[in-house]
Amino acid sequence: MFSSTGRLTDLICGNADSNAVWSPRATVQAMLDVEAALARASALHGVIPSSAVDAIVAACRADNIDADALMTGAAAGGNLAIPLVKQLTAVVKASDAEAAKYVHWGATSQDIIDTGLVLQLRAALDLLDADLRSLADALAQQANQHRATPMIGRTWLQQALPITLGLKFAQWLDAITRHRERLGELRARALVLQFGGAAGTLASLREKALPVAKALADDLGLKLPALPWHTQRDRIAEAASFLGMLTGTLGKIARDISLMMQTELGEVAEPAAAGKGGSSTMPHKRNPVGCAAVLTAATRAPNLVATIFAGMVQEHERALGGWQAEWEALPDLARLTAGALTNIKGIVPAMEVNVERLARNLNVTNGLVLGEAVMLALGDAIGRLDAHKLVEQASKASVANGTSLFDELVANETVARHLAQDQLKRLLDPANYVGQAQAFVAAAIAHANSKEQER
Amino acid sequence: MFSSTGRLTDLICGNADSNAVWSPRATVQAMLDVEAALARASALHGVIPSSAVDAIVAACRADNIDADALMTGAAAGGNLAIPLVKQLTAVVKASDAEAAKYVHWGATSQDIIDTGLVLQLRAALDLLDADLRSLADALAQQANQHRATPMIGRTWLQQALPITLGLKFAQWLDAITRHRERLGELRARALVLQFGGAAGTLASLREKALPVAKALADDLGLKLPALPWHTQRDRIAEAASFLGMLTGTLGKIARDISLMMQTELGEVAEPAAAGKGGSSTMPHKRNPVGCAAVLTAATRAPNLVATIFAGMVQEHERALGGWQAEWEALPDLARLTAGALTNIKGIVPAMEVNVERLARNLNVTNGLVLGEAVMLALGDAIGRLDAHKLVEQASKASVANGTSLFDELVANETVARHLAQDQLKRLLDPANYVGQAQAFVAAAIAHANSKEQER
Amino acid sequence: MFSSTGRLTDLICGNADSNAVWSPRATVQAMLDVEAALARASALHGVIPSSAVDAIVAACRADNIDADALMTGAAAGGNLAIPLVKQLTAVVKASDAEAAKYVHWGATSQDIIDTGLVLQLRAALDLLDADLRSLADALAQQANQHRATPMIGRTWLQQALPITLGLKFAQWLDAITRHRERLGELRARALVLQFGGAAGTLASLREKALPVAKALADDLGLKLPALPWHTQRDRIAEAASFLGMLTGTLGKIARDISLMMQTELGEVAEPAAAGKGGSSTMPHKRNPVGCAAVLTAATRAPNLVATIFAGMVQEHERALGGWQAEWEALPDLARLTAGALTNIKGIVPAMEVNVERLARNLNVTNGLVLGEAVMLALGDAIGRLDAHKLVEQASKASVANGTSLFDELVANETVARHLAQDQLKRLLDPANYVGQAQAFVAAAIAHANSKEQER
Amino acid sequence: MFSSTGRLTDLICGNADSNAVWSPRATVQAMLDVEAALARASALHGVIPSSAVDAIVAACRADNIDADALMTGAAAGGNLAIPLVKQLTAVVKASDAEAAKYVHWGATSQDIIDTGLVLQLRAALDLLDADLRSLADALAQQANQHRATPMIGRTWLQQALPITLGLKFAQWLDAITRHRERLGELRARALVLQFGGAAGTLASLREKALPVAKALADDLGLKLPALPWHTQRDRIAEAASFLGMLTGTLGKIARDISLMMQTELGEVAEPAAAGKGGSSTMPHKRNPVGCAAVLTAATRAPNLVATIFAGMVQEHERALGGWQAEWEALPDLARLTAGALTNIKGIVPAMEVNVERLARNLNVTNGLVLGEAVMLALGDAIGRLDAHKLVEQASKASVANGTSLFDELVANETVARHLAQDQLKRLLDPANYVGQAQAFVAAAIAHANSKEQER
Repeated sequence: MFSSTGRLTDLICGNADSNAVWSPRATVQAMLDVEAALARASALHGVIPSSAVDAIVAACRADNIDADALMTGAAAGGNLAIPLVKQLTAVVKASDAEAAKYVHWGATSQDIIDTGLVLQLRAALDLLDADLRSLADALAQQANQHRATPMIGRTWLQQALPITLGLKFAQWLDAITRHRERLGELRARALVLQFGGAAGTLASLREKALPVAKALADDLGLKLPALPWHTQRDRIAEAASFLGMLTGTLGKIARDISLMMQTELGEVAEPAAAGKGGSSTMPHKRNPVGCAAVLTAATRAPNLVATIFAGMVQEHERALGGWQAEWEALPDLARLTAGALTNIKGIVPAMEVNVERLARNLNVTNGLVLGEAVMLALGDAIGRLDAHKLVEQASKASVANGTSLFDELVANETVARHLAQDQLKRLLDPANYVGQAQAFVAAAIAHANSKEQER
Repeated sequence: MFSSTGRLTDLICGNADSNAVWSPRATVQAMLDVEAALARASALHGVIPSSAVDAIVAACRADNIDADALMTGAAAGGNLAIPLVKQLTAVVKASDAEAAKYVHWGATSQDIIDTGLVLQLRAALDLLDADLRSLADALAQQANQHRATPMIGRTWLQQALPITLGLKFAQWLDAITRHRERLGELRARALVLQFGGAAGTLASLREKALPVAKALADDLGLKLPALPWHTQRDRIAEAASFLGMLTGTLGKIARDISLMMQTELGEVAEPAAAGKGGSSTMPHKRNPVGCAAVLTAATRAPNLVATIFAGMVQEHERALGGWQAEWEALPDLARLTAGALTNIKGIVPAMEVNVERLARNLNVTNGLVLGEAVMLALGDAIGRLDAHKLVEQASKASVANGTSLFDELVANETVARHLAQDQLKRLLDPANYVGQAQAFVAAAIAHANSKEQER
Repeated sequence: MFSSTGRLTDLICGNADSNAVWSPRATVQAMLDVEAALARASALHGVIPSSAVDAIVAACRADNIDADALMTGAAAGGNLAIPLVKQLTAVVKASDAEAAKYVHWGATSQDIIDTGLVLQLRAALDLLDADLRSLADALAQQANQHRATPMIGRTWLQQALPITLGLKFAQWLDAITRHRERLGELRARALVLQFGGAAGTLASLREKALPVAKALADDLGLKLPALPWHTQRDRIAEAASFLGMLTGTLGKIARDISLMMQTELGEVAEPAAAGKGGSSTMPHKRNPVGCAAVLTAATRAPNLVATIFAGMVQEHERALGGWQAEWEALPDLARLTAGALTNIKGIVPAMEVNVERLARNLNVTNGLVLGEAVMLALGDAIGRLDAHKLVEQASKASVANGTSLFDELVANETVARHLAQDQLKRLLDPANYVGQAQAFVAAAIAHANSKEQER
Repeated sequence: MFSSTGRLTDLICGNADSNAVWSPRATVQAMLDVEAALARASALHGVIPSSAVDAIVAACRADNIDADALMTGAAAGGNLAIPLVKQLTAVVKASDAEAAKYVHWGATSQDIIDTGLVLQLRAALDLLDADLRSLADALAQQANQHRATPMIGRTWLQQALPITLGLKFAQWLDAITRHRERLGELRARALVLQFGGAAGTLASLREKALPVAKALADDLGLKLPALPWHTQRDRIAEAASFLGMLTGTLGKIARDISLMMQTELGEVAEPAAAGKGGSSTMPHKRNPVGCAAVLTAATRAPNLVATIFAGMVQEHERALGGWQAEWEALPDLARLTAGALTNIKGIVPAMEVNVERLARNLNVTNGLVLGEAVMLALGDAIGRLDAHKLVEQASKASVANGTSLFDELVANETVARHLAQDQLKRLLDPANYVGQAQAFVAAAIAHANSKEQER
């Protein structure tokens, strides 16, 4: 019953679609897709006989490959392509011995592995792109809905001044908008063919080298880069860096949600789902299971990025360790990012917002968090410095006496002289001291929309 | 005599210009530049009296600041801005007590620290930009000069097939071209104002908030972002990621140079300089001091990037640890990148190329590395499979007998039948089996030029 | 006024003592101490004339060294020892030209740099050792004092079951006890001499090599290892790993404290100190400045460890990048660890514990967190499964009706049949459901004491 | 055919035994082993009825578990134990409904997951222990055999002075000896039970808590720690750190071997094996496939360590992300370390040493690397400074004239006066200038033996 590939935890922070992109089968299929395209492109330019194409292309199905033999062969040869080509050749040979001579013609192992990786990366980025769009929509919707819902802003994990819940969402949204921009730039730069042959010169293809390369890129729908990039890994590093940055932002969102979801705060909650985060022995408890998964990804992602960056220091025309370090690190990173995004995308639109608790928490300090609002209003009348002193004293008295700031201020003669009681009440209403929160929400949504239209 | 700031190793992988950008003095001055600009912008919109501006601006010089008191105050307050504003206020007060009331008006510590950081980052990126351009020029020149200079290509640290030295340079060049593209995108996205006040709402500036923010951005020559980004650190992460990727590429270059410079290879050497890498007790030895510095940076950079990525998971409206982790990590990273770039920029145009050793090393295997060339030519006549078998046997014989591949092949009847002796010689000349090396060199240079013209 | 060495943030997470150990001056002095000891040891065995010793030893003072020239020379030579020996020789020569010939006799740069580093490390570990002892004492005292103070235990940032505050302290204490064990093991293994000469054979000292090595180790109070370890960096990695693990534990403590210190929880607070974490504009706010510093260190430390681990892959008999990567990373790590420890050591004994808030927070769920206690007692009478069902229903009712669990249970007939009202009250008293908390506190203290006595 | 669990690259740097320890099946079985032991221990002390034990124990076989349901359940519940206990309970229920009530009694998910992990870690460390011993034996044997085989020592990737091949092996050996010491310390500290119940107090087991804990530890052959350690992860961090340090040392060995194996050096080679590293198109080429695998591990390990260190900052009584980050990172790290060790253990005893190439490479500089030996001998007669000057000039002449150092020196009158020609020859024989190489080899072997006897 342990027949499923992958690790048992693959779904805790992962999603089935992304896991499928990076599964053993998909990895093999991506490499076989490159071999098939190579046969077509080579035949197109007369490098191999046209008659060989069908047999090769037909053989390029993962089902033809023995995974165990592949793994054993990879250990001996040092990469997956060597045993894969061997198996593929045997499969072709079984149907067409002549065609078997033309398998993998002109390519080197790394051409197949890297281009296969680029194909997988494209599929993974497609999934992320769609999820980012959907998350952006949900965030814009939530930001707009709660643009004026007051809550306490917190700095250093301490209550500071009021903000709105919508502003918090807008902050998240704007980061996502920037990541979408980065994704576009990354795709344009990273989704390119790798094709250089044994030492990166395509020497064995002689005068047909560039035409075959072009045809191969076209066949696969990839850009043709200026030259091969076997030991220039900045494109892979940029992909890793994008994934890492996105996961960092998702981690920030999960940190905020899980803090707001603390039993003592209860401001928001991950959406309830059957079997999701509940505890039969502790019915009062709903675990932020989604946030935990995202925070796991955010703990791991930076170091997966570092691995790929460290691997950039590669030797000569093919690396000894640096390239190979990408093989598990990049899929792991992509899988974790996809899982983190899936979780946040699932939480945001269905998040339970407890407006009553948001309001109650705003009052935990008996109004002290609104002191600045009063100070500014009073400052217009009696000067900022005097106002500051007055409010500071009232605040201290409030703490000492366990009274509210309103009580202390309303009893103060200077205040009474300049601020009517209802004026004071208005000043101490958090909803009236959220500054540019709504304008910022609007700006974030506008930014998101403008990016959407650019696409 | 230990009066200089910084670490004793600051110059080993650093350069004076970049170190100056990140020096304690420059850090303080950048924050003071923000305070001065804030005073001007606030006065422009009537938030503070115009009469206060001159005194504040005049006081905003790093020389007015006591560094020791700053450091002690920073330990107590948790950041540099709190004690800096205190000192600045005292300095202003000494000349104009009224003006002192308006120092730092409407801003929060993080506004000053972050915007100061952005100013430093801009200066650091300007330096890198210039150095990248100069390195690209040198690489293009070297790639072109050596576009046809044959050398052995090496994979797995083993001799593989010939390439040209120019192709190696072209590979480096194209990575640098991509980094220059990334730098442009980064600048457009990351060089923005941070201005949000205590909780990111600019509440205390009331209706003047947005006009002041706009004026402040304009004054500093920064973009105004859609909204403040106190705990959204993707811009900083992108900067770190750019620096890390660039250092990775520079590390790859240094790895290659230092390997080619091994005593036993002697293909290239770092330029000689008085006192640079020489050894009085071992006159035969020239240490690759520049490469060592670059490789040091490349060992450290990935983990500095990881630190900044890890720090992205920030709490609410101001972080507890994640933000603060940037304060030393980002300058360290920028300093190391600048040092690595300076070193490579110094080495590339003046690199000593030993063409004779390049040629000699091409012959270390007695021609075996050219077997493929013969096999292809022979294959046209007798079929690829037979040609492969024949060359393989000749190669094994060459290894066994200590003869050259030419000797083995010339004595072979089948070969003799199809290839004249001078044809065989031509086939075994590495210069004739470098494939698309020259075309790739040209493409890399064209790519570099097209990016240059876009600027 | 910017004359102080180091970074402006050196004190935010650092302490003056540790910073002094790693200062530029101390670094130079440590290397000079090795040179002085080398002169004494060499003269002892007749390798250099005894008459040379005094002049060399007298010159070995950091004040004799020009820091700027040192830094410039280090950039050219690739390390600090080359220009240092040059300056030292010049200083000796000025007083005794003959003695100057014997400076640095038989040593290589790395011998001086590494042994100097070991001396600094010893000083740094001495400081940590003392601070760990003092922290352990404070934790034991606090754990004992609060061994029975109930508070809510939290899992997934959700309220779970009661624990005691003392148990939390005991957990921290036991980790610190283990770190003290590790420190002892580390000191025994890592504080050793580095002395191998140019290629690690001590060839130039001929038959006097081992006696001089022994004398040098004795002179410096270091162990003599079986052989030099120029490119075997596991000792340094172990030191880094110790520092990283300790910082991780301190980060956990800081995370807990800062969470408990949230405005909405208010269970503990960092000790108040003048100018420490207060906010004049927000008097209700006390920032966890100490915890922030610790969390900063905990964000950075793992990646500094990774740098040193990555650097272990060193070439042949002297490395190209891996060794040099230690030079800033290890001091940074040691400095951050010391700063983190200083902060926690300062917080723990003076931490403000708000027992009233601890109690209030225990009641936030209206008793739901005690459901298990009731269930167990009831289970003895009616079977665990029925008890579970009953309590679960009562809990749900409590949530639905906004009543307390007591109210729901006391009204239940089955409960009434088996549990008297005061029995029920006792069961719902958190103090009666803290399990082995006190036993665990005692065990942790006993463990700490037993380790203390072993020393 | 893609039915095997794990990644296709699992064997490239891994070994079957270690992979088996960390397989999905083994992970589940380890947790079930804990559940079975818990049933026995609980029954022993009357916490659950003895009659329930057999049914529970019998059900605790991985074959009873549906892996896909487990993974889906883990995603919902946030960890593997929740769905595992559910499935286990169902299995028990099918055979004994009464016994099913007592599954998992008193434990929390983390107790099962952590203790299961400790059991897997123990198995993994057992494998490493055996492999380390075998590697140490092989290194001692090789070091002894080549204790006097001269080769060039290299610093900065430049030829420096002679060493012996045995000394190089001895260096590796001594690091391995230290790692074996560390492993012993780690086992004593880390292989402990995790058992604390929902909040770490074992409250639900009431007065039976400690006896059950003791019995459970005994049953599993683990130490009973002073108290549970749910959010104190220093033991796990220490295990990670050990694995990372060991991999660092193995990476250093692989770096050295792969550098010596360069085509141009050819000093050693990985043992040949069918299909291992060969290239049919390039018969002169033997790829260091084993070293590549080790260097891959060494690139990745530091960042896996960093992940686990970063995860140490855990919240309260159960973490949100930090703990979960261990789940894949620790097994990956252990698997990579085992793979790296397997590779090096396979290479060292069977390494092909080319003594002729070692000798030839020693002469690449025409004797310049022996200049110091002559200088010292000459210095005894004419003073070190004059000797230095003379040898330096001869060295420069040798380089300029393309002559050997012997030729230059033998023609020098001063030399002739003090050194007979055969004396000069002896001095220029590398075998006579390897200093303490043999003594160091002996010391390293003695150190290894003494550690072996301690065991």
